[in-house]
Amino acid sequence: MTTIDDVARLAGVSTATVSRALRGLPTVSPATRHRVLSAAEKLQYAVSPSASRLAGGRTGTIAVVVPQITRWFFATVVEAVEKFLHESGYDLLLYNLGGREQSRQRVLRTANLHKRADAIMLVATPLFPADVSTLTALDVPGVTISSGTPVPGWPCVRIDDLNTARTATRHLLDLGHRRIAHISGYPHDELAFTAHAERRRGYQAALRAAGLRPDPSLDVESQFTIAGGTRATAELLARGEPPTAIVAACDEMAMGAMAALRDAGLRVPDDVSVIGIDDHDLAGVLGLSTVAQPAAEQGRLAARILLDPLGGHALDTVDGRPLTASGPSRSDTQNPPVILPTRLVVRESTAPPRAH
Amino acid sequence: MTTIDDVARLAGVSTATVSRALRGLPTVSPATRHRVLSAAEKLQYAVSPSASRLAGGRTGTIAVVVPQITRWFFATVVEAVEKFLHESGYDLLLYNLGGREQSRQRVLRTANLHKRADAIMLVATPLFPADVSTLTALDVPGVTISSGTPVPGWPCVRIDDLNTARTATRHLLDLGHRRIAHISGYPHDELAFTAHAERRRGYQAALRAAGLRPDPSLDVESQFTIAGGTRATAELLARGEPPTAIVAACDEMAMGAMAALRDAGLRVPDDVSVIGIDDHDLAGVLGLSTVAQPAAEQGRLAARILLDPLGGHALDTVDGRPLTASGPSRSDTQNPPVILPTRLVVRESTAPPRAH
Repeated sequence: MTTIDDVARLAGVSTATVSRALRGLPTVSPATRHRVLSAAEKLQYAVSPSASRLAGGRTGTIAVVVPQITRWFFATVVEAVEKFLHESGYDLLLYNLGGREQSRQRVLRTANLHKRADAIMLVATPLFPADVSTLTALDVPGVTISSGTPVPGWPCVRIDDLNTARTATRHLLDLGHRRIAHISGYPHDELAFTAHAERRRGYQAALRAAGLRPDPSLDVESQFTIAGGTRATAELLARGEPPTAIVAACDEMAMGAMAALRDAGLRVPDDVSVIGIDDHDLAGVLGLSTVAQPAAEQGRLAARILLDPLGGHALDTVDGRPLTASGPSRSDTQNPPVILPTRLVVRESTAPPRAH
Repeated sequence: MTTIDDVARLAGVSTATVSRALRGLPTVSPATRHRVLSAAEKLQYAVSPSASRLAGGRTGTIAVVVPQITRWFFATVVEAVEKFLHESGYDLLLYNLGGREQSRQRVLRTANLHKRADAIMLVATPLFPADVSTLTALDVPGVTISSGTPVPGWPCVRIDDLNTARTATRHLLDLGHRRIAHISGYPHDELAFTAHAERRRGYQAALRAAGLRPDPSLDVESQFTIAGGTRATAELLARGEPPTAIVAACDEMAMGAMAALRDAGLRVPDDVSVIGIDDHDLAGVLGLSTVAQPAAEQGRLAARILLDPLGGHALDTVDGRPLTASGPSRSDTQNPPVILPTRLVVRESTAPPRAH
């Protein structure tokens, strides 16, 4: 059987360099990496993971937990995380909760997450107190993305949900809308439930700042999905006089709203303006105005923060941005979230109300 | 530290039953599983993966290789596979090639895929002869989804790409279209390159069956993405008289085509009809006619086929369908593909041509 020494000899480098090159670490020059890969291929050499693990005392694996995969936000985050991890020589173990309580139990409480992986990343994973105590008891680095419940000692990367929804609502107010509806996910569904509440607060704050009182009959909850947006909008329309504009708590709900409006014979934006939050990769095709959030960047940043303690390097800035871009300074609390900026993207789905 | 014996004692079952329950195997009754999970949670017991591996001689992990994650097809397949694997007690190691040749090399040739995992699933992964020999040399079960290049000994789950594109084209012919364009991915890109060629053959076969000669100026290649669909359509329009209808090789290209047509001041379907292939979860919102392929079912089926040899059971039918739903019988060739059916879904984006 081919050993790492054989590869090192053929490539004319040390075994440590072979190991680094095969793990894809950035400390190896492209030319050397190429030489090592060629030698490894010629000799049909494959790294023994048990051996690497013993040598480094690590599994070389990061567990990534998501509540769903097919949604734009989660697929985009996982793709960015996977790229960063593999470029850093780590493998990705994927756990999808999929709204199944049994999966939650298995993954977060009785499963072997922390023994199979060097670190854990939770993406928009709702955490109950029992989950937080289990995770806290593990001696393993962790990071959360877009999570409302902090895990003591774990950094969190997210956007400012309140301000993001306030920006979306303010855009409609600036266009002259006054009768503005809000559609969002159920407060206790499996997807980002704190985001729902924060985004509602942002919608209401913008209305109040414009001297308007939030009207509960214009605020409908449903699934945080395309179908949920369709249902919430149908429900809104069934309640009587339609709003002149809708703030959807995510782009997928906004897209569902557009379909429901079309089915009801209403035109976007002539009859009703629609704005979402995300900048889904189909928002442009649909002409959907939105407040864009950097999903891939949140994934990359969280992966970088996670690998840092594993490598033992200090990390005070990431992508040229201080770790605490906003919120209290790092020493004030245990977990200052890293907050990434969002930005308004105006397309065809928003316009002044007709009477205007 | 809590051991499996402690959990077995508290739950009043054997250690073998604890192991089966925690791995989620179907041979344990729901009541017993519940008792074991409760006991494991009370005792804060977490399975040691090394121990399970030693006991079963397996890693309990399946490696899933995809060329991209954020596309509808891949996210849907991965979500279905993850669910099936976790319900069967397996973890999923995710490898995304992402169009990076270095990732291909690392994952398929020099990496430790087959030592880290009990089995390998390749989703629409283009394979070069060297990849096939490396994979063949591994003593590990494998399965491919939507792959053009067979790996000897590995089953393949797919759709009939040629017939699917023929169905899409025939729908336009039936509506009275004669000037029908085709937009598809580059023949050698990282995404499903054999699908492109097969779908082109289906488009051409339908035209020929209707007595029409395929016109190369109406056949444009670009990226197999939304942006690629936009670019291909802009190129088509730049070539002169627009077609009255477009067959896009996937829904994402069709959506890009709809955006390009709108930007050019052309209405869908009044000026140009558009049909795709997939039934993307936003096809309904966009009113896109398409030929639907069962992406989640392909994932589930491939996962089931993959786990079968690991469990040692015979598997001649899957979901009530014989393993060789179509094509030569199982004994005729080493790898009869399992071909799942597709179906025409007519929405608002296709209509008779205006002159009709």
